[in-house]
Amino acid sequence: MSIDPRSLPASHSSVTVPIGTFTTEAGVDIPGAELRLFAWYEGPADEAVARPVIVIEHALTGDADAADWWAGIIGPGLALDTERYLVLCANCLGGCQGSTGPSSAHPDGGHWGSRFPALSIRDLVAAEKTLLVDVLGISRIRGVVGASMGGARVLEWTFMYPEVVEAALPVAVSARASAWQIGIQSAQIRFITADPCWQDGDYHGSGRIPSHGLGQARRIAHLTYRGELELDERFSTEPQPGENPYGPYPSPTERFAVESYLDRQAEKLEARFDAGSYVILTDALNRHDVGRGRGGMNAVLGSSQVPTMVAGIDTDILYPYHQQEHLSRNLGDFIGLSKITSPTGHDGFLTETRQMTVILDKFLTKAALLAQR
Amino acid sequence: MSIDPRSLPASHSSVTVPIGTFTTEAGVDIPGAELRLFAWYEGPADEAVARPVIVIEHALTGDADAADWWAGIIGPGLALDTERYLVLCANCLGGCQGSTGPSSAHPDGGHWGSRFPALSIRDLVAAEKTLLVDVLGISRIRGVVGASMGGARVLEWTFMYPEVVEAALPVAVSARASAWQIGIQSAQIRFITADPCWQDGDYHGSGRIPSHGLGQARRIAHLTYRGELELDERFSTEPQPGENPYGPYPSPTERFAVESYLDRQAEKLEARFDAGSYVILTDALNRHDVGRGRGGMNAVLGSSQVPTMVAGIDTDILYPYHQQEHLSRNLGDFIGLSKITSPTGHDGFLTETRQMTVILDKFLTKAALLAQR
Repeated sequence: MSIDPRSLPASHSSVTVPIGTFTTEAGVDIPGAELRLFAWYEGPADEAVARPVIVIEHALTGDADAADWWAGIIGPGLALDTERYLVLCANCLGGCQGSTGPSSAHPDGGHWGSRFPALSIRDLVAAEKTLLVDVLGISRIRGVVGASMGGARVLEWTFMYPEVVEAALPVAVSARASAWQIGIQSAQIRFITADPCWQDGDYHGSGRIPSHGLGQARRIAHLTYRGELELDERFSTEPQPGENPYGPYPSPTERFAVESYLDRQAEKLEARFDAGSYVILTDALNRHDVGRGRGGMNAVLGSSQVPTMVAGIDTDILYPYHQQEHLSRNLGDFIGLSKITSPTGHDGFLTETRQMTVILDKFLTKAALLAQR
Repeated sequence: MSIDPRSLPASHSSVTVPIGTFTTEAGVDIPGAELRLFAWYEGPADEAVARPVIVIEHALTGDADAADWWAGIIGPGLALDTERYLVLCANCLGGCQGSTGPSSAHPDGGHWGSRFPALSIRDLVAAEKTLLVDVLGISRIRGVVGASMGGARVLEWTFMYPEVVEAALPVAVSARASAWQIGIQSAQIRFITADPCWQDGDYHGSGRIPSHGLGQARRIAHLTYRGELELDERFSTEPQPGENPYGPYPSPTERFAVESYLDRQAEKLEARFDAGSYVILTDALNRHDVGRGRGGMNAVLGSSQVPTMVAGIDTDILYPYHQQEHLSRNLGDFIGLSKITSPTGHDGFLTETRQMTVILDKFLTKAALLAQR
């Protein structure tokens, strides 16, 4: 069964699709849930729906417009070739870019705010499966691909819905959250919830936004996303032009260039992302564990029936490469491991377009061969 | 010339020594400056002062009581053998454990607070040299050893006072701050200065202490000190006993075990360390650059006349091992590089006592041979 072409948004654009009442793993209902879906394809929609489907899973602060944040990867003749595939990406539940999240209107009035429940990675995938399979009628997905939080969702797709996924490519992720990840992620949540503007999560519409706490979280998060080699090549010990960080007293307005860069990263996120969504999705990352409640991590990995290729970045400190090696050793239907070499660290999946293209080519070639079995 | 035995504190104890008015590199006077000095030696002081002197440089939140934080390293028969050496360690200027810093009384009344000036690593070493050489009369130091911020001071000793230092062992440090270090260190400074209790640095005696900001800084700093392998071995995804981080809503009181551990680390530092000292010394780390104003980093390293051994930890993300390899390639009188293998990361110099002992043995053996030249 394939998607009804009338359900498809125009290529390079999006639709918001109701998925009904969603019940979380921990038992809370989200009535009237919606997910924002982007699609990319060449030619008319009724031709596109006959093509194999590729689903992209975005990272924590990513969104459904994957062609924007994954530049050079999606399009005619590119790695995710829109002449050969129907490429889809949904903003995850709990997000703030078109899908239902803490900043959305609550059916009973006001914003969801503190009423919005905790989500697990499994919840995010269950909601997306409702959208793609139950609502849109997609029965098979040629490849599910994604990095970081996207990679965690890719893995969960293979354990939750193996009958739908023909092949999977999780990038720069692990089988479960590590203690270090939980530590640094929880600290970021605290920065936001300790901001007086947080107001227990019910700040939406109050005119006061916990942007200070969100900015603090972003500065730290960005330093886990960006490799120290790349940052040092760009900024070294250079002062920000016009400022003197070597003055007689420490001063927040006399900065090094890297401080100014981190300030810009914080400001950009404050302008485009909801702090409540950041808390919900970061907490979901803390809960990531493919083994939880299923009989243990390595046993679960070994039970996988979905052909899965793994990739990682050599300088990643957030999801160190040994975590992808661990997946490779244990996955039940493992079809390959690729290492991206980059000074950029975790964000290498975004910046190393040529290496990512080679990996996606290899993955989709294998996935096509396996789909013929 | 050797130290007057009457100036020596009893072994395992300390004295506070006035060093007069100290003028910082950036031109601010600190009148009435004092430094706290610990000493360790076996037997009477007049015998101890005839032995070769070893000076230990402590890390950021360390203090002069090195036998406390560097357990198993200092004592009779240990790596820093108190039967063979006179072992000294001073709390650095700007600190809060006996040396003059922001929490000290100002000669004009009140606390130094915001009147306390910025310090460079060179300032810390210049003050210590005043203490050891000019005040106490020590003319030669067999070995200067230290890790992290201590290692930065060790390096500066070799460039500022090569006539005093016979050999040097900087551990887990770099020739200059990297952009990543500056980024994460500056973020920590911001956490403290953004705390409403900071009061522009003049909180001492006000009854309100920026302990919240200091705790935030410590959580992040600790995650740069501790390797993810070690943390994961200890905590994995375990919930804190009696708490449920998988509940229906995210909650700061339903924690993973690693969150509770980081909370304890924050509380411990809040109880023992002054936030103002944390800001001043963290800012000093940002300013660390052996090349600054001296004609460039590698040229300066190449000009070194002091035999220098280098060590680092394989899993250190704060001062990655390639930074110690860089020192080894460029130091003018390089006498060896050792890699500590540890899951613990940067703190490996504290936890891997056996490996650290082997390195110190090798270093002191070479230093003794070189001192006979």
